[in-house]
Amino acid sequence: MANEFAARTSVEQVEEGAELAPKFDADGLIPAVTTAAQTGELLMVGYMNAEALRKTIETGEAHYWSRSRQVLWHKGATSGLVQKVVELMIDDDQDCVWLKVDVSGNGASCHVGYRTCFYRRVPLGAGSSKKLEFTESEKVFDPKVVYGDAPNPTKL
Amino acid sequence: MANEFAARTSVEQVEEGAELAPKFDADGLIPAVTTAAQTGELLMVGYMNAEALRKTIETGEAHYWSRSRQVLWHKGATSGLVQKVVELMIDDDQDCVWLKVDVSGNGASCHVGYRTCFYRRVPLGAGSSKKLEFTESEKVFDPKVVYGDAPNPTKL
Repeated sequence: MANEFAARTSVEQVEEGAELAPKFDADGLIPAVTTAAQTGELLMVGYMNAEALRKTIETGEAHYWSRSRQVLWHKGATSGLVQKVVELMIDDDQDCVWLKVDVSGNGASCHVGYRTCFYRRVPLGAGSSKKLEFTESEKVFDPKVVYGDAPNPTKL
Repeated sequence: MANEFAARTSVEQVEEGAELAPKFDADGLIPAVTTAAQTGELLMVGYMNAEALRKTIETGEAHYWSRSRQVLWHKGATSGLVQKVVELMIDDDQDCVWLKVDVSGNGASCHVGYRTCFYRRVPLGAGSSKKLEFTESEKVFDPKVVYGDAPNPTKL
């Protein structure tokens, strides 16, 4: 696919310019950090290829590239939990984007059924047990009901 | 280096368990999303190897792996802008961590001199110009003063 964004020609252009010149990695992907627009809570980190980024910009709804399923992924197409993009930001060297979104429905973003993918805390300190502490006690949906027998995207 | 974290043995263990069993990619890295604990603002996205993750846990200060310099990177060692980790979270499939940090000094986290690395907005909509809009108008420090003639980490 031809690169539909600006070519990267100088550090100054990339860092201080107004041209959208995203850097896709060797797999053609750029990481996308998605937070809840209202609360600032981190919901998920996904990846976009050029098509996913373009569709996100043009439709105002989050599109990702599913690395586990190897398909363009319109978030919410299965679960109904579409992410409406309130603001889309790009970082200094344009190798990462930040989506601030409103989530429809019950506000869940995690395939396990929690509100956010980040529901466990790692204890800190020199003597840390490294035993994870759950910060969400109840799931907001039942993944079996929502996804049926679709394969779990988690890879070992 | 031996993996000092738990082995990944099942989806249930990884998603619903209390063992810290992070997934490092082919380069031995896991992405780390860093937000300001007070405001929820996204400051940066970096990468950690196993040593950086362990040092972050043990010291409570953010350590990353610098992909451009290929060294363990104690954030703030050069600039003085150390990130104190208030809370460290890990996601469902344990392939991403989230650091909520307090930044010392002037609160800057971006090597270009802005407060956050995400200082430009991508306009949305079917007719988007894709011309970036700056959301920070002034730098909070002068990179030349802070970093001297150290090489710029941005790669084209």
